[in-house]
Amino acid sequence: MSSPNYVGRRNKLAKALKEAGVDSILVSGVSNVRYLTGFTGDSTWLFLSKTDTILISDSRYTTQLKNECGELKVDIRDAKRPMSVAVADVVKKSKARNVGFESDHLTVAQHQNLSEKIETATLVPTSGLTERLREIKDSWELEQIKEAVRLAERGIAVVRSSLRPNQTERDVRYTLEAAMRSFGATGPGFEPIVGVGPTAALPHAHAGDLLVSDSPVLLVDWGAETRSGYRSDLTRVFFTGKITKQMETVYRTVLKAHQAAIAAIKPGVECRVVDGIARKIIADAGFDKYFGHGLGHGFGLDIHESVRMSPISEQVFETGMVVTVEPGIYLPGKFGVRIEDDILVTNDGHEVLSSVPREFDDAVVEFLA
Amino acid sequence: MSSPNYVGRRNKLAKALKEAGVDSILVSGVSNVRYLTGFTGDSTWLFLSKTDTILISDSRYTTQLKNECGELKVDIRDAKRPMSVAVADVVKKSKARNVGFESDHLTVAQHQNLSEKIETATLVPTSGLTERLREIKDSWELEQIKEAVRLAERGIAVVRSSLRPNQTERDVRYTLEAAMRSFGATGPGFEPIVGVGPTAALPHAHAGDLLVSDSPVLLVDWGAETRSGYRSDLTRVFFTGKITKQMETVYRTVLKAHQAAIAAIKPGVECRVVDGIARKIIADAGFDKYFGHGLGHGFGLDIHESVRMSPISEQVFETGMVVTVEPGIYLPGKFGVRIEDDILVTNDGHEVLSSVPREFDDAVVEFLA
Repeated sequence: MSSPNYVGRRNKLAKALKEAGVDSILVSGVSNVRYLTGFTGDSTWLFLSKTDTILISDSRYTTQLKNECGELKVDIRDAKRPMSVAVADVVKKSKARNVGFESDHLTVAQHQNLSEKIETATLVPTSGLTERLREIKDSWELEQIKEAVRLAERGIAVVRSSLRPNQTERDVRYTLEAAMRSFGATGPGFEPIVGVGPTAALPHAHAGDLLVSDSPVLLVDWGAETRSGYRSDLTRVFFTGKITKQMETVYRTVLKAHQAAIAAIKPGVECRVVDGIARKIIADAGFDKYFGHGLGHGFGLDIHESVRMSPISEQVFETGMVVTVEPGIYLPGKFGVRIEDDILVTNDGHEVLSSVPREFDDAVVEFLA
Repeated sequence: MSSPNYVGRRNKLAKALKEAGVDSILVSGVSNVRYLTGFTGDSTWLFLSKTDTILISDSRYTTQLKNECGELKVDIRDAKRPMSVAVADVVKKSKARNVGFESDHLTVAQHQNLSEKIETATLVPTSGLTERLREIKDSWELEQIKEAVRLAERGIAVVRSSLRPNQTERDVRYTLEAAMRSFGATGPGFEPIVGVGPTAALPHAHAGDLLVSDSPVLLVDWGAETRSGYRSDLTRVFFTGKITKQMETVYRTVLKAHQAAIAAIKPGVECRVVDGIARKIIADAGFDKYFGHGLGHGFGLDIHESVRMSPISEQVFETGMVVTVEPGIYLPGKFGVRIEDDILVTNDGHEVLSSVPREFDDAVVEFLA
């Protein structure tokens, strides 16, 4: 059993600082802080320089910080001392000359406050330094993600085996969440999308009051979160009634795009190229107007992480990346189909981490008469 | 039955723009967008000027936007057109000269991208314009919050009546969430904190594997979210075993601080003064080191909203504000007590919206022998 190597991660970040031209960094993105330290709370920033590794937090977290990352120095501020003042004190003591900040996480107002309080160093924008490290999952992270996939798979098996025509979208969602928890998940990896018919045509719908019997199409987009905070992200469509020719065509087109895209994933291939493979298959079938989102995204501690697969992505696949592949076709007011799996990029290609059946026949659910 | 007055809210914001010295605003905070339009998705920004009200979104949300705010103009971008470009186009067409942005929500990187793309207007930082409106709840919002409180109350009644010594913190959390959902909540208002003994001493703990029987103290900090997106936020402590003198002293001190603070709430009173009343009672009892967080906060669509009650707050209570009052004493490694209720500021004082019993005797749970 491996364990998370926080020291190794921080050393990699320290190296990246040099290349970014700063002698220290203030990490404020909550998942970045967790990735680099193991701390699971919020409102806590990490200051990292050649000589210092300090978590700046408040008294709500004193004990939790000791429990979760007791080897690290901590600066605890009380309710009278704003974060910007605490950071300025830490920066001053560190003798850092320029402090990188995370421009994708710090708000304009936070930046302004820091600028006013920090007098001994210059603030320098950085982008994606820790996110870049997080793109490549280490072996411990892969264990967690595989566990998240297994939890999701067991959850959907419960949903499928207990499906009834008189369940609402909400009923299905809650059944799914309770099942995943009963198997050991902390919870869903994100708000599960459970959509019947027209709701399935909304790529990001909330589960509502439609009944499974209101349409032959049921879409479920779900994942689990492990106790270690890692997530999975899958989508399946179930046919629960009379299937039209159009439904079958749409399903088979999406599946073809899904399979062709996955087949193309290997180190060195551009993300945009894989997106293009799926997009072309959908366009050739006449549905280009009905697939508006990107093909997929990295995930891990967050449900959406770098890398992104889209027509404007400039990223390239590398060994150790884990991404979703999720083409879809959405016919407004009628139904939608999306098929989504979780893919690990390996040295010689890829590994599909999720094994929920996805062939057309697998999607057909039969109820008792 | 009242209904949300989105037009009225946007008119108020339009008035505030004048005072802020801008002729238009780009609203990017997700709850602010929901408050002003009713849209429940994300990744969607609102551009508002004297002549324009436009939601800038992407094709995942085309249909949902029609369903939820069909009366509003929408600019749908596809996967090839970044948000910054879409915003620049909208700003150009609008003929706005200066565009306020939300400096508490826009990241430094988003601001940089917008600055590069917008050529026809100046970007001007604003802070809290919509949050200021959200401080004062309208009658429809009060209905939603009262519903969220009722859902939370019914949920904790289930937890209390089903409590067993061999339940883990997680078991209690999941029981609570399932109960609130069964009564109609979308889910919890936030991740419920369920802490036994030492875990109760962590103001922001995750529910873990401790058993109810591992300590005589069980703390539950929970709330519900209504289908309309409004939340409640309560905390109760239960004594499930032999109560020490110290536990009773701590409980009675927290309750005294809680009651005295609530009694002082009325329009015109400074938030910091109310915080000070509770803080002094806790300090006088010798526990000042063990109450590090602020006394309370506004809530509604978000679980933490303006106003804040803390020693450095500069805000003043007004009729229509809804806040938590939640003093606590946390003895590291031993136990913690927090008592939290939801308070509406009324014309002539306040109304306590939550009625879960909170006297010392009410906290004592007896199990069957």
